[in-house]
Amino acid sequence: MGKGGKSHEEEEENMAAWLVGINTLKIQPFKLPPLGPQDVRVRMKAVGICGTDVHFLKTLRLADYVVKEPMVTGHECAGIIDEAGSEVKNLVPGDRVALDPGISCWRCDLCKEGRYNLCPERKLLSMPPNHGALARQIVRPADLCFKLPDNVSFEEGAMCEPLSVAVHACRRADISPETNVLIVGAGPIGLVTLLAARAFGAPRIVIVDVDEHRLSVAKGLGADGVIKVSTDMQDIPEEVEAIRKAMGTAVHVSCDCVGFSKTMSTALSATRAGGKVCLIGLGHNEMTVPLTPAAARLEIDVVGCFTYTNTWPLCIELLRSGKVDVKPLITHRFGFSQKEVEEAFETSARGGNAIKVMFKL
Amino acid sequence: MGKGGKSHEEEEENMAAWLVGINTLKIQPFKLPPLGPQDVRVRMKAVGICGTDVHFLKTLRLADYVVKEPMVTGHECAGIIDEAGSEVKNLVPGDRVALDPGISCWRCDLCKEGRYNLCPERKLLSMPPNHGALARQIVRPADLCFKLPDNVSFEEGAMCEPLSVAVHACRRADISPETNVLIVGAGPIGLVTLLAARAFGAPRIVIVDVDEHRLSVAKGLGADGVIKVSTDMQDIPEEVEAIRKAMGTAVHVSCDCVGFSKTMSTALSATRAGGKVCLIGLGHNEMTVPLTPAAARLEIDVVGCFTYTNTWPLCIELLRSGKVDVKPLITHRFGFSQKEVEEAFETSARGGNAIKVMFKL
Amino acid sequence: MGKGGKSHEEEEENMAAWLVGINTLKIQPFKLPPLGPQDVRVRMKAVGICGTDVHFLKTLRLADYVVKEPMVTGHECAGIIDEAGSEVKNLVPGDRVALDPGISCWRCDLCKEGRYNLCPERKLLSMPPNHGALARQIVRPADLCFKLPDNVSFEEGAMCEPLSVAVHACRRADISPETNVLIVGAGPIGLVTLLAARAFGAPRIVIVDVDEHRLSVAKGLGADGVIKVSTDMQDIPEEVEAIRKAMGTAVHVSCDCVGFSKTMSTALSATRAGGKVCLIGLGHNEMTVPLTPAAARLEIDVVGCFTYTNTWPLCIELLRSGKVDVKPLITHRFGFSQKEVEEAFETSARGGNAIKVMFKL
Amino acid sequence: MGKGGKSHEEEEENMAAWLVGINTLKIQPFKLPPLGPQDVRVRMKAVGICGTDVHFLKTLRLADYVVKEPMVTGHECAGIIDEAGSEVKNLVPGDRVALDPGISCWRCDLCKEGRYNLCPERKLLSMPPNHGALARQIVRPADLCFKLPDNVSFEEGAMCEPLSVAVHACRRADISPETNVLIVGAGPIGLVTLLAARAFGAPRIVIVDVDEHRLSVAKGLGADGVIKVSTDMQDIPEEVEAIRKAMGTAVHVSCDCVGFSKTMSTALSATRAGGKVCLIGLGHNEMTVPLTPAAARLEIDVVGCFTYTNTWPLCIELLRSGKVDVKPLITHRFGFSQKEVEEAFETSARGGNAIKVMFKL
Repeated sequence: MGKGGKSHEEEEENMAAWLVGINTLKIQPFKLPPLGPQDVRVRMKAVGICGTDVHFLKTLRLADYVVKEPMVTGHECAGIIDEAGSEVKNLVPGDRVALDPGISCWRCDLCKEGRYNLCPERKLLSMPPNHGALARQIVRPADLCFKLPDNVSFEEGAMCEPLSVAVHACRRADISPETNVLIVGAGPIGLVTLLAARAFGAPRIVIVDVDEHRLSVAKGLGADGVIKVSTDMQDIPEEVEAIRKAMGTAVHVSCDCVGFSKTMSTALSATRAGGKVCLIGLGHNEMTVPLTPAAARLEIDVVGCFTYTNTWPLCIELLRSGKVDVKPLITHRFGFSQKEVEEAFETSARGGNAIKVMFKL
Repeated sequence: MGKGGKSHEEEEENMAAWLVGINTLKIQPFKLPPLGPQDVRVRMKAVGICGTDVHFLKTLRLADYVVKEPMVTGHECAGIIDEAGSEVKNLVPGDRVALDPGISCWRCDLCKEGRYNLCPERKLLSMPPNHGALARQIVRPADLCFKLPDNVSFEEGAMCEPLSVAVHACRRADISPETNVLIVGAGPIGLVTLLAARAFGAPRIVIVDVDEHRLSVAKGLGADGVIKVSTDMQDIPEEVEAIRKAMGTAVHVSCDCVGFSKTMSTALSATRAGGKVCLIGLGHNEMTVPLTPAAARLEIDVVGCFTYTNTWPLCIELLRSGKVDVKPLITHRFGFSQKEVEEAFETSARGGNAIKVMFKL
Repeated sequence: MGKGGKSHEEEEENMAAWLVGINTLKIQPFKLPPLGPQDVRVRMKAVGICGTDVHFLKTLRLADYVVKEPMVTGHECAGIIDEAGSEVKNLVPGDRVALDPGISCWRCDLCKEGRYNLCPERKLLSMPPNHGALARQIVRPADLCFKLPDNVSFEEGAMCEPLSVAVHACRRADISPETNVLIVGAGPIGLVTLLAARAFGAPRIVIVDVDEHRLSVAKGLGADGVIKVSTDMQDIPEEVEAIRKAMGTAVHVSCDCVGFSKTMSTALSATRAGGKVCLIGLGHNEMTVPLTPAAARLEIDVVGCFTYTNTWPLCIELLRSGKVDVKPLITHRFGFSQKEVEEAFETSARGGNAIKVMFKL
Repeated sequence: MGKGGKSHEEEEENMAAWLVGINTLKIQPFKLPPLGPQDVRVRMKAVGICGTDVHFLKTLRLADYVVKEPMVTGHECAGIIDEAGSEVKNLVPGDRVALDPGISCWRCDLCKEGRYNLCPERKLLSMPPNHGALARQIVRPADLCFKLPDNVSFEEGAMCEPLSVAVHACRRADISPETNVLIVGAGPIGLVTLLAARAFGAPRIVIVDVDEHRLSVAKGLGADGVIKVSTDMQDIPEEVEAIRKAMGTAVHVSCDCVGFSKTMSTALSATRAGGKVCLIGLGHNEMTVPLTPAAARLEIDVVGCFTYTNTWPLCIELLRSGKVDVKPLITHRFGFSQKEVEEAFETSARGGNAIKVMFKL
């Protein structure tokens, strides 16, 4: 037994929200694995709902991932250390932490090159067949739990996960005070990308979307320009014209936070010679895009992005210092009862004015 | 007048091969501009025919470039300095040189960042409205003329241009002793990419094409594996399987030297997570490709490539040291008469076993 | 004659501040060169005094540069376009501009690689034998003159030069929201480095100096920690301890804005494994430093910095947006009379509470 | 018990070469730790002697590392898998392998960034207090054992360790077909750096040393130029002149494989503007060097190098393909008896014509 007084078995039965079938979530007991010497047991305090969680709930699949057996959902999370394994050095019970949801193998080439997000054996919370975090307690490796300063709430801690996606994209696209940024798509990832790009110094940021409400949120979060666009490929030339006008100068980096032919074509067309297009959204597998004029004539690079590596410390620092404020993105809050879990997922799925739906446990 | 004895006007009338209409080239007088203080007058000795030269001959256009007035063709070239401007320091009459065909503005941001290939004012030999190099003599800035060592022929000097495309791609894709390379397309650019990738250290190189003769040439040039592929998208999975088998290990970088949906899809599908796909070919503007699984799940970057910067010194060194041998690529040679010019372009256009067609002047 | 009404000769005799001997500056006529087609004639409005200007005044030399003939001083400058050459496109008379002082050859390898600051033929304003900018008017290439927005004053425009040194260092050291920065030396360059590092996102910045007044200025400019240090090598261990304590976390990048054995040793000792030390100061040529433990055991890289490339647009944007405020650094202002020129240089040379001394013309 | 028939305890007592005091090595029993599920037991076949092993033998210390208790020596090694842990996937008994000697924590920031060579908890074979590899058998994590192809001998496999130092330096210094390389010091590390730089494409390599025999070895290994230098700082200018003459062109990268004031000063002085100096040698902690002119005027970067990351697969590929031939470096071979162990270390310590001394077990 690790450091931390009474073990949890003595106290209570651990409960979690299980995805048990299409559109069916059940709060049921969730037996924790034994605590290893480098592990911690974390009492969850805040868990956010991600679009992928909703997608699994609706279809039981995403890309090559299929939910074949009941699985605990949720992976955007923060909590309090209840117990620390015998060799854990940096955490003690009572510490408030945000959690990186990915466990990589640390033995393959990609892990050793620092690209452990690409590890073929990586296990992410709530990606089947791995259980998630929407539970009273979970057991995780201590090195994936990062202490929160007093002025960063659990909710903000849980927001480190989507913010990590954006931070990783900013790194991959090398966003700096020298890069004006176009963001295509003002959903949750587009909005955190806006916040992260600003924190990385982007002087001008323009954001486009088909939805006026989302654009008004983006405007409120500090976008220099917002443009309503259509889903029609024919409109690209004039939309690009509007983007350039709103930017006032060249677009150095475009972030496609959607992943459709239209959105990627817009990104490729709006970016200046020598710039970068960062593909973050997972919309459609196949795209029809003007890649040749962009890449083979203007040397626009398409930069790939998948989840994140080493982002929690930076995210926490950005939240601590106030350089990023994610609080306006948290639009709905729910408790952890069967009824509220169902309502929360419905709220998130419905979209509308919901951006981030958060559980408080 | 610069250094170099009698001016050319006293001696002879300068002649050049003019593109005067579709499928019509005429050898006609070509009046040289005055020699500036930083210029040299070069007596051409070898000029190769590039696919773009043929394309302009057949259609008078390429992408946004249109031949509106008669224009001298040719841009792969080498010759002898006849006269050097008053401020030229490093060249004297009699020097044998290969020529970089691009003149950039040196005043815009992209020039100052070292990406002068992207300069919007760049003037390339034989890209309309700029005259080319298939002439007895041309006048060029001295800093674009690079001395050839004794053991590098004029023909090899002219080959520095296509080799430069390949060298630039190798740099952009960061090819090294650590990158196994797939080359899609075994035309002239695919073949020089094979040679350049080897010189940059690529341990294993597999090349695919639809044409068996080209593949046999690639095999002769040292490809570790060659695979005949179809133009059918349906065949991609099994062709990728064959590529991986031929490679024996992961593909780190794929170079698409064609630029079609099929070729790019093959490149994106064959490359390992975290790898790069380099788009060199200018086939079709629009492509339908599985970009999302590649970029947004496996972080495969698509690296853009357009012409070259600072490549002549390296190309000449590679030829001098024997690390690259372009001689097997020169399959046909012609003199500079009206009849031979016509025959040479027909030979190049016909393809077949012609790889590089070269004029000797 | 270019665009811009009456030529200057018709109006007035151009005057400039000439360095004519040790400690001797004279305002004397300065004949302008003819205006080339790509040149502009600029009426100077603000010129700052740099430490190198003072150094030349005191000794007539700096490193390998020797003042052998009378030379106009000054290179931190901004003004108004009076006349534009016939081919100048982006500037018209009346435009307010800040000036990049370096003219490179654009023909050598280094220029073509985008490292034109290292061009062996580079001509910098007020680096012998090239005249400077402390004059009523000067003639310069238009591409080195950058338009100022309305909300950026001439003085701020002149500050783009020292700010450029800092911006170039931030780029070379890859300063971002992920790099905590130690700055060694709180002179003018240390202070602009503080401002630039903050603009590049550095979350925590600690600055050390031997002078309390300078440290108080640094504190006022937003340093997270300031530490008074000695000139004694023996004190390094405890000073490094104090630096780490003030930082609260690891030092990722250290900028040595001085260039002595002590300052560089401090920088090398304080930086974490895998970090960078950026050497900006030109103090002493030879240094005795613990380079082996830093580089060969901790992989700390020493990053070289010399002047700047392509920095004016970014500096102007940083000033326009308010991300950098250089106004507090301008402590003294003088007019352009013989007496005031002498007083201004004395003020700058004396140091004390003078940071940047500025001429208003 | 893992896969692999009888456990070793049943067969024999494991013996190892223990460093038990200054100049005292003893072959004594060495009890192996239990085999974990991800471990392998390796029967050693070849172990090389490194300079650090000799240093520990002579002084029981190196930098901050002190031998406080008897310790098994040796870390350049290759062998045969005798037994594989229950979860090991890629190795089976009988596989021939070369071993990476470092075990990192995989939990710290540096490990996760791919810079696991800088992990503060890294445990290297034969760096106190960690036992080494000069033993009949050792137990190691399977992911640090890399299969050797049939055409790579055990001796060559053991040479992957010093070759890894050189490969890591080539990566850090970005050596390519575009970088002419100066190597300072022709000891074992200088010589493998020569071989690795060539494999990375370096067109011209000049090597300097104080010892004529070593230079003649370097010449035999393919150096383009070799220059005998002194230990006198005064000679640097003329030695640099000789280096440039031998190179025939600019030095882009200099590798200091020694680490003294003289060697580093030579490297800094010989390198062209914008180049890199790579510090590999661990000679003296403090150096007196002309760092300011190099870094703050010519933007020469000093690149740090410490051991290696992810180098074994590349080293094995270089040996397999014949791009690197380390066999000429193995000058002496010894068996694994008490007497031979002593003789082998004496031979290595004596230097002379000994480059690499190898044990065959």
